Amino acid sequence: MTSRDIQHMRRAVALAARGQGGTSPNPVVGCVVLDASGEVAGEGFHAYAGGPHAEVVALREAGERARGGTAYVTLEPCNHTGRTGPCAGALLEAGVARVVVAVADPNPVAAGGAETLASRGVRVEAGLLAEEAERVNAAWLTFARSRRPYVTWKFAATLDGRSAARDGTSQWITSPEARAEVHRLRAESDAVLVGVGTVLADDPSLTARVPEPLRARPVLRVVADPGARTPASARVLDDAAPTLVAVADDAVVPPHLAGAVRLPRADGGIHLRALMAELHGRQIVSVLLEGGPTLAGSFLREGLVDRVVGYLAPALLGAGAAALGPAGVETIAEAHRLEFEEVTPVGPDLRIVLRPQSPKES
Amino acid sequence: MTSRDIQHMRRAVALAARGQGGTSPNPVVGCVVLDASGEVAGEGFHAYAGGPHAEVVALREAGERARGGTAYVTLEPCNHTGRTGPCAGALLEAGVARVVVAVADPNPVAAGGAETLASRGVRVEAGLLAEEAERVNAAWLTFARSRRPYVTWKFAATLDGRSAARDGTSQWITSPEARAEVHRLRAESDAVLVGVGTVLADDPSLTARVPEPLRARPVLRVVADPGARTPASARVLDDAAPTLVAVADDAVVPPHLAGAVRLPRADGGIHLRALMAELHGRQIVSVLLEGGPTLAGSFLREGLVDRVVGYLAPALLGAGAAALGPAGVETIAEAHRLEFEEVTPVGPDLRIVLRPQSPKES
Repeated sequence: MTSRDIQHMRRAVALAARGQGGTSPNPVVGCVVLDASGEVAGEGFHAYAGGPHAEVVALREAGERARGGTAYVTLEPCNHTGRTGPCAGALLEAGVARVVVAVADPNPVAAGGAETLASRGVRVEAGLLAEEAERVNAAWLTFARSRRPYVTWKFAATLDGRSAARDGTSQWITSPEARAEVHRLRAESDAVLVGVGTVLADDPSLTARVPEPLRARPVLRVVADPGARTPASARVLDDAAPTLVAVADDAVVPPHLAGAVRLPRADGGIHLRALMAELHGRQIVSVLLEGGPTLAGSFLREGLVDRVVGYLAPALLGAGAAALGPAGVETIAEAHRLEFEEVTPVGPDLRIVLRPQSPKES
Repeated sequence: MTSRDIQHMRRAVALAARGQGGTSPNPVVGCVVLDASGEVAGEGFHAYAGGPHAEVVALREAGERARGGTAYVTLEPCNHTGRTGPCAGALLEAGVARVVVAVADPNPVAAGGAETLASRGVRVEAGLLAEEAERVNAAWLTFARSRRPYVTWKFAATLDGRSAARDGTSQWITSPEARAEVHRLRAESDAVLVGVGTVLADDPSLTARVPEPLRARPVLRVVADPGARTPASARVLDDAAPTLVAVADDAVVPPHLAGAVRLPRADGGIHLRALMAELHGRQIVSVLLEGGPTLAGSFLREGLVDRVVGYLAPALLGAGAAALGPAGVETIAEAHRLEFEEVTPVGPDLRIVLRPQSPKES
């Protein structure tokens, strides 16, 4: 690998990122094609499910110049014929001589593209900028490898970790700017999840009041409601977006929740891994977990939080509901440790983005 | 005022800042002296109490070149003879023709320097870069105007606002880097203040384990201990630094606390404004409030917090002691609102510095 290789793959990763929020249930993919002399001949990314794959876009731009050239692809080219033809085949047909891949495809149906290419004489190299390429595709890779959606826990709190004052009032802790961002976070997710406590307390509509990116499906609203207590009048049941109510398998379900899905109980709530499997089955790649503290605590305890996005208001309350409820931690050594990934002012507030601490080498 | 004036005053403010942490009970002051042609002839700042004032340092460097020149001073030159002569007199003697001042001296003893200068034919202009100059001198100006120390509340917490796990363990929530910074904060303060609850729970020594800046006095340890419960064996009573224990005026005081100061009670604790007045009388310009949650809440409720320095660990607990106790807030509209001033990574943690929100124009 040369510094030129790194430069081209970095560009491919940047291209891939442009598809974020729109490609579900597909991954984001970026591709750069060079001609035989090493000049860039074509670029592409996957923009929306059902649309052309990154390799096809880049090869189309390159045309005959691709012959004898190199393709940089952030994810191993697919080998199966979905809504579009297999990309491995397209690369072969275009006469590309060398394919550089960042991340191997973990999908058992699509995988094998690298092998197919190599068996037909194409030079295949893998692993270049794998970390960056993993990061840009974190949601889909979690979905594909762990067979569950990628979960982002979003919270808004004061500096002392409270999401409401002593009398229960919480409008508004954060600024209009921060609240607008939450709508964008929703629009980029396949599903938004709350516990029934939040539905009963705040009656949120959970819709994204911003234009959604090009999406195959609207954002699914999900309520974890073991006791089937979501009232018929709840905004979350209106026509603005589809809604999945998950009730316990022993719940007595009122007629307006007849469409609810029944799942096993665990620890007084819905069995969260069963809920995640249900959502995986519905091709939900990413979930925005919005509340409340009890549900967030359960997700953390179960190791089901992949990313934390917090909006910290420059305010102090000293009393009132905590943003996070019991999360399975008894003593300091058991604390859920994360790493800051981004810290950004949003109006007067601070947005912090964290990921679970990488496992220590042992 | 010209952009040249702004540039020279900005330099004077930067010079003033170099004295921070060392000048107590004096202010920090910076001075730039130009010769008659507008060239910089001398610079100075006040470095430690008892040392030469900024104007004297700058004039000494300028020598004869100061005659007919301009002096930029961040604080109105003093008019009284303390340990050093009056600076107004020194400026007159040097033959300076024009004096530009950022902030007027609020000290009734020292004030009047501008008037003295003007009455002797010096052109005096005031208010240039007043905001920046106020900020660099915030502690001393609070001390002089409000007749109480400037209070910095320091806390360390998880993202969910907790300072200990459910079982009480708290070592360590923040990183060694953040804890080292706290020692620096202590060394820059005139006093470090905790409630007796912290003494009983953690038995801290409250010393600054870093070299203190040039100081007239060591850092005073202060314990708010209404019931005179500080045990004789407490580390805070050792010989490492002086300690002031403040007990309620009705407390039964054991022999080892015979030197305690007696103050009125309020809301079950020491009357905080009485404590602040006591510290003001002892020439304590700045206080680092270190804990615990109850005392911090009382300070906030009383409007006695001038700055907040928080160390946020990228960790979540979901249960355990809150970093901040009741602070007089019942409903969201009463929240203590602040403004982020600095956000800085410190090792894996985040240091946030905030000040109370400026009063709204009405």
